[in-house]
Amino acid sequence: MDLKDARVTIVGLGLMGGSMALALHGRCRSLVGVDSDLDAVKLAQRQPAFDRATPDLAAGLNRCDLLILAVPVRAILSFLEDFRLNPPPIRFLMDIGSTKRDIVRAMEALPPSISPIGGHPICGKAASGLAAADPRLFQNQTFVLTPLSRTSSATLRLADQVLARLGARRKIMDAERHDLLVATTSHLPYLLGTALVRCAERSGAVDPDLWELVASGFLGTSRLVGSDLTMMVDILTTNRDMVARALAQAQSELGDLARLVQAGEPEALRDALQSARDRRSVIPAAAPLKESPLG
Amino acid sequence: MDLKDARVTIVGLGLMGGSMALALHGRCRSLVGVDSDLDAVKLAQRQPAFDRATPDLAAGLNRCDLLILAVPVRAILSFLEDFRLNPPPIRFLMDIGSTKRDIVRAMEALPPSISPIGGHPICGKAASGLAAADPRLFQNQTFVLTPLSRTSSATLRLADQVLARLGARRKIMDAERHDLLVATTSHLPYLLGTALVRCAERSGAVDPDLWELVASGFLGTSRLVGSDLTMMVDILTTNRDMVARALAQAQSELGDLARLVQAGEPEALRDALQSARDRRSVIPAAAPLKESPLG
Repeated sequence: MDLKDARVTIVGLGLMGGSMALALHGRCRSLVGVDSDLDAVKLAQRQPAFDRATPDLAAGLNRCDLLILAVPVRAILSFLEDFRLNPPPIRFLMDIGSTKRDIVRAMEALPPSISPIGGHPICGKAASGLAAADPRLFQNQTFVLTPLSRTSSATLRLADQVLARLGARRKIMDAERHDLLVATTSHLPYLLGTALVRCAERSGAVDPDLWELVASGFLGTSRLVGSDLTMMVDILTTNRDMVARALAQAQSELGDLARLVQAGEPEALRDALQSARDRRSVIPAAAPLKESPLG
Repeated sequence: MDLKDARVTIVGLGLMGGSMALALHGRCRSLVGVDSDLDAVKLAQRQPAFDRATPDLAAGLNRCDLLILAVPVRAILSFLEDFRLNPPPIRFLMDIGSTKRDIVRAMEALPPSISPIGGHPICGKAASGLAAADPRLFQNQTFVLTPLSRTSSATLRLADQVLARLGARRKIMDAERHDLLVATTSHLPYLLGTALVRCAERSGAVDPDLWELVASGFLGTSRLVGSDLTMMVDILTTNRDMVARALAQAQSELGDLARLVQAGEPEALRDALQSARDRRSVIPAAAPLKESPLG
């Protein structure tokens, strides 16, 4: 099946689902949006990208070829369990949840009438919700696909067409490797920001003037702390072992840095900081559009 | 003495010294720039804010009423030691170094002909150097002053006039308290970003695909890692005890977060994350312009 002939339903009309809808608009046979939040549904009904928007999942799954689940991880897991017990009449299923092992495991249990594939677009922006949706959100950004052994070549081909429409760069990897890597690249930055705010909270309780000394560096380092809580709790509870490993590594690195600072040898300290600075400076070169206005 | 009658010399024509010059231009009797870097001097010579720019410190200190030291902390300490041995013909001295205890201690040893005061503007931006200077950099930002017991009221008054011209918000505190608080608000974010890059470096050495999964969250959390190395080494080596304390606190917070994640109780985890999210969300309200385009 070609994407242009597919009736697509997107469940979850937040920043990600909404941005996918805007990018897929006009590139598929029809586009239906589903969300339990009536405000999101109303907003989608005024948005020309959607042929239809409804809070009724069954209505959204009726006459649907490709279903895209764009909700937090544990909500995806709940849908997959429902689908196992009461298979909807869909052929292709893709999700964009932020952790992949539990989801891929639940996809394995789906009835054979449904051909599933896991996905995770590696992008985001500070604003959330359908109002912040942008069809260019995925452009030149990595989009991980985690095919199952049961994933058909037709499903992989359809997913490829979706990614092509988003302008994303496909990266195929297994769910285990994905979850290990994002623990460091995504979940750890969030928790480091959270630890920073907790440290400031503690010192600020002793001396509230601390807050007057907060500037852009602190705010930038802790920006992720404003992420959606349901999304983050779902991510952390479905990636506990990998997150714990990343946190232990970070504690160890902070210990090394503390020893370097306390040793009082400016040259050794400088070498270590220089090395991190050099490493970071080449990242944007490898991912040119990651710091775009969308980022 | 009023600022408008003062002959001002700024030593250090980087982002901070340059931005101060642009903001003080036309508000003092004369403005001289000094830098050991000939390129910075040449750039300043083409910049109408300066009456004169020179690499020659002695020439810059000749006919100077107010000297502003806008170089990294250990360079300030070196100047103060030179001034103790060979006092220049200046009346008022202010510095804008990022840590204050060592500087204030060195200022105590200056000859009585010089009246010193410590300062630290709490702002910055990603770009550095005179080319990135902006007279609005300090607007509505906190500017800490750390007067010594020997600081004259005339010096404090002159410093107040400088801050008024910058549009900064004055905050008087002692050097000890300043250094304690900035260890958490400024030095810790830098080191958390550095720890993040070191974690990624380690995992990326095992699986280089990690770098394809780096997006805006990682980059924002580690933005400070690109800070000027000389500045950061000077800061960390002159605030070792406070920085070590902040790092130990951060390690402890990461340990608490790891236990919360591993406990597998989504509600307890959510409460902790919610608390940090709420705390951070009220910071920009307390400091309205901190996330401006300058920040």
